Amino acid sequence: MESAIGVLVSQFKAFAGSDGSSDTLSRDEFHRLVKSQLPNFVTNAGDSTAIDQLMSSLDKDNDGELSFLEFWKLIGHLASRHGGFSL
Amino acid sequence: MESAIGVLVSQFKAFAGSDGSSDTLSRDEFHRLVKSQLPNFVTNAGDSTAIDQLMSSLDKDNDGELSFLEFWKLIGHLASRHGGFSL
Repeated sequence: MESAIGVLVSQFKAFAGSDGSSDTLSRDEFHRLVKSQLPNFVTNAGDSTAIDQLMSSLDKDNDGELSFLEFWKLIGHLASRHGGFSL
Repeated sequence: MESAIGVLVSQFKAFAGSDGSSDTLSRDEFHRLVKSQLPNFVTNAGDSTAIDQLMSSLDKDNDGELSFLEFWKLIGHLASRHGGFSL
């Protein structure tokens, strides 16, 4: 599990580091990450409006950036659905 | 990222399936998982009392079992620390 966790952290950092704060995902970074890394797990991963709505629902403090823990919540829900767990 | 998420889900299921409910971790299953899968990320992974305390802090509904999303919260915090993000 530790190596899988390491992969998720380093991928997050790779995308978060492309502009502005290297610890958070901007709107553009989030779009790029979803399209390239979560194309099957996110419904409508190719639909920019849907990704904007998803981002707004995760960005609890409405600062226009997703922190690692905000992002982690998303992948927890995707993982839970992928695993067939009840939410 | 999808394959790393898949690894975490299948490892969780492998441990959760060893006794009782196959969707949740019992105390024994959680101990085995932490010792074998998170030996470096969990401080005191070899200390049973510490693991019991960790489990209590995660088991929000106090039913003695950890759901996938309760477990996901733990690994989010471990991942965040591993990545050097502020909590």
